[in-house]
Amino acid sequence: MDGRNIIGSQFVSSDKEGFKAVNASTGGELPGMFYPAGEQQAEAALAAAQKAFKPYSLLDRTRKAAFLRAIAAEIKALGPSLTERAVAESGLPEGRINGETGRTTGQLNLFAGLVEEGSWVNAVIDTALPDRSPVPGPDLRKMFIPLGPVVVFGASNFPLAFSVAGGDTASALAAGCPVVVKAHPAHPGTSALVGEAIMKAALATGMPEGVFSLLYDTGYSVGENLVKHPLTKAVTFTGSYRGGMALSKMALERSIPIPVFAEMGSINPVVFLPEAIKKNSASLAAKYAASITVGAGQFCTNPGLMIAVKDPSLDLFISELVKLFTEVPSATMLTAGICRNFHTLSNEILQEKGVSLLARSEREGPFRFNQSVAILASVPASDFIANKKLKEEIFGPYSLLVVAENEREMEQVVNCLDGQLTVTVMAEEEELDHYAGLIDSLCRKTGRIVLNGVPTGVEVNHAMQHGGPFPATNDSRFTSVGADAVYRFVRPLAWQDWRNDLLPAELQDGNPLNIWRKVNNKWTKD
Amino acid sequence: MDGRNIIGSQFVSSDKEGFKAVNASTGGELPGMFYPAGEQQAEAALAAAQKAFKPYSLLDRTRKAAFLRAIAAEIKALGPSLTERAVAESGLPEGRINGETGRTTGQLNLFAGLVEEGSWVNAVIDTALPDRSPVPGPDLRKMFIPLGPVVVFGASNFPLAFSVAGGDTASALAAGCPVVVKAHPAHPGTSALVGEAIMKAALATGMPEGVFSLLYDTGYSVGENLVKHPLTKAVTFTGSYRGGMALSKMALERSIPIPVFAEMGSINPVVFLPEAIKKNSASLAAKYAASITVGAGQFCTNPGLMIAVKDPSLDLFISELVKLFTEVPSATMLTAGICRNFHTLSNEILQEKGVSLLARSEREGPFRFNQSVAILASVPASDFIANKKLKEEIFGPYSLLVVAENEREMEQVVNCLDGQLTVTVMAEEEELDHYAGLIDSLCRKTGRIVLNGVPTGVEVNHAMQHGGPFPATNDSRFTSVGADAVYRFVRPLAWQDWRNDLLPAELQDGNPLNIWRKVNNKWTKD
Repeated sequence: MDGRNIIGSQFVSSDKEGFKAVNASTGGELPGMFYPAGEQQAEAALAAAQKAFKPYSLLDRTRKAAFLRAIAAEIKALGPSLTERAVAESGLPEGRINGETGRTTGQLNLFAGLVEEGSWVNAVIDTALPDRSPVPGPDLRKMFIPLGPVVVFGASNFPLAFSVAGGDTASALAAGCPVVVKAHPAHPGTSALVGEAIMKAALATGMPEGVFSLLYDTGYSVGENLVKHPLTKAVTFTGSYRGGMALSKMALERSIPIPVFAEMGSINPVVFLPEAIKKNSASLAAKYAASITVGAGQFCTNPGLMIAVKDPSLDLFISELVKLFTEVPSATMLTAGICRNFHTLSNEILQEKGVSLLARSEREGPFRFNQSVAILASVPASDFIANKKLKEEIFGPYSLLVVAENEREMEQVVNCLDGQLTVTVMAEEEELDHYAGLIDSLCRKTGRIVLNGVPTGVEVNHAMQHGGPFPATNDSRFTSVGADAVYRFVRPLAWQDWRNDLLPAELQDGNPLNIWRKVNNKWTKD
Repeated sequence: MDGRNIIGSQFVSSDKEGFKAVNASTGGELPGMFYPAGEQQAEAALAAAQKAFKPYSLLDRTRKAAFLRAIAAEIKALGPSLTERAVAESGLPEGRINGETGRTTGQLNLFAGLVEEGSWVNAVIDTALPDRSPVPGPDLRKMFIPLGPVVVFGASNFPLAFSVAGGDTASALAAGCPVVVKAHPAHPGTSALVGEAIMKAALATGMPEGVFSLLYDTGYSVGENLVKHPLTKAVTFTGSYRGGMALSKMALERSIPIPVFAEMGSINPVVFLPEAIKKNSASLAAKYAASITVGAGQFCTNPGLMIAVKDPSLDLFISELVKLFTEVPSATMLTAGICRNFHTLSNEILQEKGVSLLARSEREGPFRFNQSVAILASVPASDFIANKKLKEEIFGPYSLLVVAENEREMEQVVNCLDGQLTVTVMAEEEELDHYAGLIDSLCRKTGRIVLNGVPTGVEVNHAMQHGGPFPATNDSRFTSVGADAVYRFVRPLAWQDWRNDLLPAELQDGNPLNIWRKVNNKWTKD
């Protein structure tokens, strides 16, 4: 594995001191040395991306799709070496990493299919009205065009699916934008392996030099260089509220502001309606103990908040949950910093007014380093409503049960919630109608609303929305998962009275690409 | 005409001193007294809008469409009283105001049609995959839902089409969002007439109380109250760069940031390719003298910049333009401030290095007040490239001709341009291929690219894009004109495994609304 930065087809070192990767579960050093990029490498990567932009964006759709499929194939070809490295760097179990690899290659192939099919550009055509009075109507044709070089920040909690070749990179490349990735310092070896896979795929499919680059840094300076650089046209980030807001501010203070898509965190409330708890206390407890603690709770959709009304059946649900939490083994967290933060915050929360500890996991997992201890707490609704701190995300295997005195108080809890990635309702058929108003209020707070399921497990398809009202993300109008993630990197351009053969093929007469288009306000393939 | 603020179905005064409207062409006072709103009225209007939001957004599509059509009918019914008032307040000629009234009612009817047809919500459905392994796939259904109360700032240059019942209001109401309009102080009477028309339409069609409000102010304080109010979910503005940026900053500094859609200005470059100038110098001059000076040049798409290569035929074009400019009569500008600003800026520009005056209109129009004098200037490309000031918009009947020494210098001029609403290319068929690279560069700078036409005259249809890269607008991904303007006020929401009858009708099995939907990645009406 080569730990130098990747700029186009070149490995590039820097004059900064190299750093080593750490085994998350043991604290031991892993093979390979990585070289933090400086301003010079950021400049070179973006200059190369800008040079690649025009030729890449104008490439035929089949060529772009071939590139995306080749990346997926190169990643798959890495096989166990990638799994092993990702497991070591992230502390995530092998099964999870294998699943994530499948998701990552699946995502790349999904976007390849989207590009090949071609209708995603939203071609809209209003043909000329030469006989209209008092003035004739022009011929107008509009479609999405790519923005330019995109900077992607690798996320720590998905070392593959939200990292170097993750959904952000795949969707930006699908849109026709070159990508510069700032690797997450917690998994530099995984990043190097995947970065080299992309480099190989770009060479094998004859992509323009500079369509992809990968830079390392252990601190913030290269990220800042990239976000502030005039050639950067959009930024993606998945991580903390503080990190997302800092990038967002930086991007808006540029002389030419650019969009930052920051997925910043969410407590993913789960509302348990009374009949559901009455009828299924044990099975619900099992479902949620698993959803809260899977992967050491390190999911943006982790159910960090449960809401229910006081009832004897709720006590049964609680005692089941307590039993299950106690039995959850400790698990390796992604980094020492995340682990420290989790323990500090989850313990601090227990000091807040009204909060009581329900359960703490008492079993030890196979490792000793960066170990999470799952925490289940509860709080009366009135204390929850009054306390801003209880509404903030605690990243890890933690959930807070808010106990309302009655239905009205449950509504008050719902009304004081911030914006969320997901909201879940656990209900019996017969009680849904009664809670229509509550459910409508929940819809206004979230990007995805789940019925009788768990929020963890995010499908990568066309209907997925992964993004919600602030502070879950800084822009609820876009998604970072699923096919529509491509729309983060484009803007519409309208051609007026343009000569047919000079229009993009997507807009030409006769629909040579056979895509869905809206022609004179009708969707058609004609 | 009632000059009090409109809050829902009530006329509401304030404790502030009233103000009078001014006849733009004569400086005389017009009938009616208008009452600036204070913080209390802003609060009341937004509280009413919030109360209306849920019932309004859930109204059947035919009811919302009926409301939009009723507004159009009420405006039409105002007849000559509206025309007369708008002419007096704006100084725009009667023909233009009548055209604008037609555009305004046409826009309302366009959005009514969009809402009735219903496919605009972009329904996307991925049905469940119960047999998928290792985990079954959920049923996911996504569509756009409205954001909440929208604040619309009336624009001075379109007292009807971009004001109280203009495209912003029409598209926000179509999206399902209540609207609070801050009336532009230059046309309070026009605003009052249109505001009352909307109030009547809301009552006649049984809309929820508070779906529309209208507030006056002569300064900035009510606008600031509205933008900073926690209930406001989006803001629209058409006006100056400074105004747009101030609002944008205010919205982003809120504890919960919201989108501001600011259309801020553009110089709308026109590139004259050599053969076009050679063959049509006289007709091009006529076309452009008219486009630059129509409506006293007070269009966001006014061609404020012309670019051409030095040539004897260019001298012919210039001499034709000079003749026509000299003959353009002076015309009333919208306000004394705009007129003062135009004269200051258009004279200052003549002091810049390399800029020389080509022509100044010498004829007097029928009025004496707020009169614009059309200005045509030229500058060598090298001076233009070096001078930031020459790239800024001068709002009024003004254009600057940039003369390049050769094709390469013309490219340099194009490369130094800021983002634009429109770019126009005037060309002969046979020279287009040669300039493909230049045209591609122009595409990257603009929201709309016109071939052999004029940028003024903005169609309101499905393919229109009115919005371009910064600083033309603060967000090039959206349009403020045409059907897609509705997408400024919505965000996607995904329902996972939801019970069919509790889904919005747009997402239900069997497609009860018979709209276009993307089901398992195929567009269909099934």
